[in-house]
Amino acid sequence: MQKYVYSFGNGTADGDGKMKDTLGGKGAGLAEMSRAKLPVPPGFTISTEVCNIYFHNDNSVPAEIDAQMVEALKTLEERMGQKLGDVANPLLVSVRSGAKFSMPGMMDTILNLGLNDQTVKALEAKANNARFAYDCYRRFIQMYGAVVLEIPKADFDAIFDGQKKKAKAKLDTELTAQDLAEVIAAYQKLVLKKTGKPFPQDALEQLAGARNAVFRSWFNDRAKHYRKMNQIPDDLGTAVNVQAMVFGNLGETSATGVGFTRNPATGEKVFYGEFLENAQGEDVVSGVRTPHPIAELDKWNPAVYQQLRDITTMLEKHYHDVQDFEYTIQDGKLYMLQTRNGKRTGPAAVRIAVEMVQEGLIDKREAILRVEPQQLDQLLHPVLDPASKKTLTKLAVGLPASPGASVGTIVFTADEAVIQAQKSPVVLVRKETVPDDIHGMEVAKGILTARGGMTSHAAVVCRGMGTPCVAGAESITVDEHKKLVSVTVGGKVVTLKEGDWLSLDGSTGEVFAGKANTLDADPSSGALATFMGWTDEFRGKFGVRANADIPRDAKAARKFGAEGIGLCRTEHMFFAEDRIEFMQAMILARDEKSRRKALAKLLPFQRRDFAGLFQAMDGFPVVIRTLDPPLHEFLPKREDLMVDVAILPYADIKKKKELVATYQRFGAEVKTLKTVLPALLHRVEELHEFNPMLGHRGCRLGITYPEITEMQARAIFEAAVQVAKKGVKVIPEVMIPLIGGVKELEDQKKIVVAVAEEVLGKAGMKDLKYMVGTMIEIPRAALTADLVAKEAEFFSFGTNDLTQTTMGLSRDDYTKFQQEYKDKKIFAADPFAVLDQEGVGKLVKMAVELGRKTRPDLEIGICGEHGGEPSSVQFCYRVGMNYVSCSPYRVPIARLAAAQAAISGDKSETQRTA
Amino acid sequence: MQKYVYSFGNGTADGDGKMKDTLGGKGAGLAEMSRAKLPVPPGFTISTEVCNIYFHNDNSVPAEIDAQMVEALKTLEERMGQKLGDVANPLLVSVRSGAKFSMPGMMDTILNLGLNDQTVKALEAKANNARFAYDCYRRFIQMYGAVVLEIPKADFDAIFDGQKKKAKAKLDTELTAQDLAEVIAAYQKLVLKKTGKPFPQDALEQLAGARNAVFRSWFNDRAKHYRKMNQIPDDLGTAVNVQAMVFGNLGETSATGVGFTRNPATGEKVFYGEFLENAQGEDVVSGVRTPHPIAELDKWNPAVYQQLRDITTMLEKHYHDVQDFEYTIQDGKLYMLQTRNGKRTGPAAVRIAVEMVQEGLIDKREAILRVEPQQLDQLLHPVLDPASKKTLTKLAVGLPASPGASVGTIVFTADEAVIQAQKSPVVLVRKETVPDDIHGMEVAKGILTARGGMTSHAAVVCRGMGTPCVAGAESITVDEHKKLVSVTVGGKVVTLKEGDWLSLDGSTGEVFAGKANTLDADPSSGALATFMGWTDEFRGKFGVRANADIPRDAKAARKFGAEGIGLCRTEHMFFAEDRIEFMQAMILARDEKSRRKALAKLLPFQRRDFAGLFQAMDGFPVVIRTLDPPLHEFLPKREDLMVDVAILPYADIKKKKELVATYQRFGAEVKTLKTVLPALLHRVEELHEFNPMLGHRGCRLGITYPEITEMQARAIFEAAVQVAKKGVKVIPEVMIPLIGGVKELEDQKKIVVAVAEEVLGKAGMKDLKYMVGTMIEIPRAALTADLVAKEAEFFSFGTNDLTQTTMGLSRDDYTKFQQEYKDKKIFAADPFAVLDQEGVGKLVKMAVELGRKTRPDLEIGICGEHGGEPSSVQFCYRVGMNYVSCSPYRVPIARLAAAQAAISGDKSETQRTA
Repeated sequence: MQKYVYSFGNGTADGDGKMKDTLGGKGAGLAEMSRAKLPVPPGFTISTEVCNIYFHNDNSVPAEIDAQMVEALKTLEERMGQKLGDVANPLLVSVRSGAKFSMPGMMDTILNLGLNDQTVKALEAKANNARFAYDCYRRFIQMYGAVVLEIPKADFDAIFDGQKKKAKAKLDTELTAQDLAEVIAAYQKLVLKKTGKPFPQDALEQLAGARNAVFRSWFNDRAKHYRKMNQIPDDLGTAVNVQAMVFGNLGETSATGVGFTRNPATGEKVFYGEFLENAQGEDVVSGVRTPHPIAELDKWNPAVYQQLRDITTMLEKHYHDVQDFEYTIQDGKLYMLQTRNGKRTGPAAVRIAVEMVQEGLIDKREAILRVEPQQLDQLLHPVLDPASKKTLTKLAVGLPASPGASVGTIVFTADEAVIQAQKSPVVLVRKETVPDDIHGMEVAKGILTARGGMTSHAAVVCRGMGTPCVAGAESITVDEHKKLVSVTVGGKVVTLKEGDWLSLDGSTGEVFAGKANTLDADPSSGALATFMGWTDEFRGKFGVRANADIPRDAKAARKFGAEGIGLCRTEHMFFAEDRIEFMQAMILARDEKSRRKALAKLLPFQRRDFAGLFQAMDGFPVVIRTLDPPLHEFLPKREDLMVDVAILPYADIKKKKELVATYQRFGAEVKTLKTVLPALLHRVEELHEFNPMLGHRGCRLGITYPEITEMQARAIFEAAVQVAKKGVKVIPEVMIPLIGGVKELEDQKKIVVAVAEEVLGKAGMKDLKYMVGTMIEIPRAALTADLVAKEAEFFSFGTNDLTQTTMGLSRDDYTKFQQEYKDKKIFAADPFAVLDQEGVGKLVKMAVELGRKTRPDLEIGICGEHGGEPSSVQFCYRVGMNYVSCSPYRVPIARLAAAQAAISGDKSETQRTA
Repeated sequence: MQKYVYSFGNGTADGDGKMKDTLGGKGAGLAEMSRAKLPVPPGFTISTEVCNIYFHNDNSVPAEIDAQMVEALKTLEERMGQKLGDVANPLLVSVRSGAKFSMPGMMDTILNLGLNDQTVKALEAKANNARFAYDCYRRFIQMYGAVVLEIPKADFDAIFDGQKKKAKAKLDTELTAQDLAEVIAAYQKLVLKKTGKPFPQDALEQLAGARNAVFRSWFNDRAKHYRKMNQIPDDLGTAVNVQAMVFGNLGETSATGVGFTRNPATGEKVFYGEFLENAQGEDVVSGVRTPHPIAELDKWNPAVYQQLRDITTMLEKHYHDVQDFEYTIQDGKLYMLQTRNGKRTGPAAVRIAVEMVQEGLIDKREAILRVEPQQLDQLLHPVLDPASKKTLTKLAVGLPASPGASVGTIVFTADEAVIQAQKSPVVLVRKETVPDDIHGMEVAKGILTARGGMTSHAAVVCRGMGTPCVAGAESITVDEHKKLVSVTVGGKVVTLKEGDWLSLDGSTGEVFAGKANTLDADPSSGALATFMGWTDEFRGKFGVRANADIPRDAKAARKFGAEGIGLCRTEHMFFAEDRIEFMQAMILARDEKSRRKALAKLLPFQRRDFAGLFQAMDGFPVVIRTLDPPLHEFLPKREDLMVDVAILPYADIKKKKELVATYQRFGAEVKTLKTVLPALLHRVEELHEFNPMLGHRGCRLGITYPEITEMQARAIFEAAVQVAKKGVKVIPEVMIPLIGGVKELEDQKKIVVAVAEEVLGKAGMKDLKYMVGTMIEIPRAALTADLVAKEAEFFSFGTNDLTQTTMGLSRDDYTKFQQEYKDKKIFAADPFAVLDQEGVGKLVKMAVELGRKTRPDLEIGICGEHGGEPSSVQFCYRVGMNYVSCSPYRVPIARLAAAQAAISGDKSETQRTA
């Protein structure tokens, strides 16, 4: 028969540290410590499989497994020389959960099991302490009653508080043994009333009940929620650990504590932790008494302190990682209750990894695998001072859309942002941002929006700029007209106005009223620099580029280690105040001639921007995408215009002046409103689209208006010539967006190449190397990639749009049903954050293979949001891409993820370097 | 060396009738006729390859090919006993184009080549007719001057007309030989002036010039346009046919004519055509003189008549098809100039195919391949009487969106349509239609829209209902407020008002002012019935179903031979006047309880509709799709509401009453407008989507509101039980739309199956077979079809949406750049009309293979618009689908296309029947 119950203790164990799947993390740790002859109270672990069996067996454990448990209990009793339920020398045990992945505090625990009306007396005799024994018993009844018998904890609390009142006791410790005996009697009465049965006196019945309750707690709401948050599968189940009780509260020579072998916040190599004498574990956690720093243990009991240091040092060496341990000292004797790899902050993770390599504990590969790529985020942005956070009112928690801290005064419009930013740092607060807000977003220290997801306009733009952003803080109400933001906090409405201070934590999504202090991150700190250097050694030729639209971003990207620009979105340049009017003139033009006139005015701006990018990226490639968004994005919104036109006949002079202010760029004066507005609306109507995402945009613009592509190509190559003449190495890669097949690319490439040949020819720079390639962001392009590669010199996967089209899912509209999809686990993860490898990824893989079939040296990268998401980066590495491109602040994360992929090993390295 | 020039004549030929690629249609026909010893004037054909060589060789023909031509010319001269340019016995030739596919009148022709100032005298002597000879010469100079030398034809006309004036001649024939000699002199002067060189007197130079001009005419605007319209590739090139001239205008014993072996309009087996004595071909065509019916040739020259009948009868037998022939009688001797398979109307095609089988000329396979599936359209809809068309003003030509004739009085709104339709037939004229118009569309005899493409709402709905529709007639202006439609015709504005008569031809897109007569089609006519029976024999198990939403359509579908319903769009049922209010109540409901209450009211309607469908489809499957469109489609438009809310503060009582009328369904009264409108707008804003196509629709609705799916499943199975109890065989197939992966299907299937088991169980009909399957209309579903097939019992490809998502192309917005894409040939064809086999088709094929891998007996069909398009139907057959489904009126077309695919042969038959 299969083994379901694993014993440990007395320097031996049935299982070992590798059996986390079966024994859970805690059980595997206890087995491993036991084998290492550490002083672990003996016990046994009921495997995680039993948890699943329990649920599939109508919430009960089959008799044969029960028998294994009784067998293991016998072993334990022998090891302890005690017997469960024995009236003379009773064994007491703890019953604890323990899943494969740590889920701290999410499931249930029962201590002091084995006590009943008889055995409590034996405990009293053994401890020579009646108060201690009765306190243990009343705690046991209370825990068991709440957890196993599901009696509201409040009912027990009422009895206990009543007794305290009666005894005029302020602290629990002031209750006498007699008081506690009365509490026990009242508790037992409560149990009888609520369950119709007396409190179980049979210790084996107690044990089975506790075990099953721990299983059931796998599906309590907290645990389910925690698993959803941490993407832990429901079917792993929890193990149950039954272990002999040791008591840190047996008197003044007893104590209990927790610790880390290194500081988990900073990574510093110091013995870190605390202890509390004459106490049980829960006393340390509950905060009723203040524990002492672990260093003081040395004074309290030097021998035990030294033993603990030796043991934990040995454990760190054994596990090659920082240990998070729990211990109890019973009557001067040390027991290790638990050890596990310690959770740590990002900065600590990097420092520990680097120092452990230097200490020879681990090698560089191991070090690289030790740091979660996501954790680097904490090292790259300034953070809110945690102390400062505590002093401010937390208004809301939105989505952590772009990391970092941001503190400034509130503004509600982009224009105000520009004005106010000259005086003080500002935080732009909007219902949602639109491309028109870009000038305000550029000057703001942070953005807060009430609507929108992790890939909303605000989120995407902010991550690109490295500006902290909290998006979709749905509990706040933004009134942009009255310039007020309000939110209900603890039943009270808090309202902030323009100019009030606001603090955002873009890494957590927290929003605070008032001015918090910030702590600067140091991206070039010693450990981080060393660590990132190692990642570059391992990722080899696999490149990491940045998405950057303006020279400032390009410089930031270089600082973070970007090896080129993977995506420059030229349209972002058009939204700037000094350019938008020419862009609008171009769109409103009725014929090619006037369109060319407007384009000629945009040319110098574009050339200057491109020159700045080439300059910043000296020696690295710069991928520039031609105009992508639909033209109506550059004009006023259709519905606003419809309302203004409808209202015009009723407008008084004040309203008319308002309208003139809004539309003066389009030639509006009070007298001309009647003609200007309808004419503008007419053009906007012409451009209106039902599904802009699938409409007249991308290369479709360049095909209908070849002069736009022509102007952009001219700006690119004139800038290239300009910068190259200064001795800078310029590598332009012109990228055509949204193609569905090779013909579209052919059409646009012809224009680009003609301009390039002309400009380079005139400058005598015919040998300046450039490429023309394409985004792969429409399924059809991926499906016909072998044909597309006939023209394309490079591919860049636009996985944002590719995800939208492949899944038929608008990322702007997905929010409407995202919650239900999450609850029902329709998607494994948010497909706009984590690349959907099963669907979209299949298409990506196919396109890589088809493209390389036609053109074996095809350069292939990714420039969608996924290019900075670790698991997606690893996917890109595996399918054989040449590089990923992401927002500047995610470049280090991508570098690490790529290195991890390289270390994990794959077969595509040969393809990539071919 | 390769052969480029092919001689024919004297009962022999270098080429033959199969060499259309090389010789063009005309050249191949001449070779074949020559071989058949028919009286064909001898000559030679310069191959189509030379045309391409000409263009790739800087518009000139290499010397070696020239040499081949001279060689062939020698042969011709020997056969004729004449020499080109010989002053005693000159050879005259015609030089004509002739591409692989007939392009009638698109390219250039030159006759009488070889004439010059000397040879004209020889011709005069030979014909004993000076006037004839000079007329030939002046015609030659004129043609050569215009075509080869590119002198404006008007310049020649001016000289000719001047001469007529001078000679006081009304008709050309009144000019004397002397007059014509003066014209020739003036023509030659013109040529000298325009080209700086005298008119070429060297006959070989004339020949080379004419040959090259014919090549060049391959790329004239007419020819390019014709090829674009008919999807003929540009690189086929044209051949050049040089042939000895014969003259039908050599006197009263000469004549020329054209004819068909059967009536090409009706298919009737009668000798059909006309002739004109003493005339050249162009006289017949130009309409200057009226030709005689061919039957009269029998009186005019019985021997020649009999010879012509014998030859053409032989030709028809030889080619197994109706022949369209040209002939000339020179001095009583018959010459055949051309023969080709005759173009014919749809009714003629069917009748000829059927009768030829009965005559033993062809077999059934051949008959089926003879009829273009598209041609059946003409047999299935009433048509405008062509005579009647001529008497009316043609206002515009829009897109032929839904075939058939429609005559009625104009209405501008759906509501008016309902009212007016009780009095007279109505044509609904709209800028564009919306789902809300459905009640008006149902009663209208035809629909005319100013905007929208072949797959616009109006077009799709009309084709479904078999209602004629002209869509996207962009030249008309529709003012729905003033109830006027206006259009500029020949510089004048024509305006029609409500109640005026309008006639539409949905097969051609023509729109006429006034009331035209219509001719009824007879879908069950003898020949058609026979023909369709044959198609069914050949397509075997490959099914053809219809898309039908209501019992009336289902009945029509059966009449056209549909073997089931492939798509019932349940939402169309919700737009009806008596249901929309419950639908809206459901959408406005704030909680599940009120939603269920509204759904309960919809249930009986749905059940009744489904019962009607099951009844009509006795024994055939009915595929019912659960709710698909986004909910906001059922509510007033957001922008209209925004305007109304903005205007409300200024509204006078009249306006307020108007608003009440519009919104009374939502509880609006004059007093409550201020609360009702903003509340409604709020809900509409909540539902507003940026890209509705990719938004909260399809299965996503059923997942967020399971109670909707539940209600629909209940209606389906309760209807099934109801109808099955009457002894009707019911086969329900429930189809979940817009799934992207198996999990969505799993979720919805669970609901459907639970309801089905409950309803069937209660009725004691547990053995009633039903299936639950899914649309494949999102690329991700196709890519993961192996997983989807674990749950899906059938697939149905929704190629409308699949095309939109795979190509990233909104069919509603595509119209914005469709023209440029057409001009630049980006797409091979409109992807919403003809399935894009290269891209979308690849995904379809992949999904079929993946799906069958998991579930070998998976039923697979298509229900997008493409299901009725012949080349797409054939694709569906080839990839191994089980059936296609299309609008009822296209069912016969699909049946024919499927039969043709079966006959063309493929390997997938085994898969399908596996």
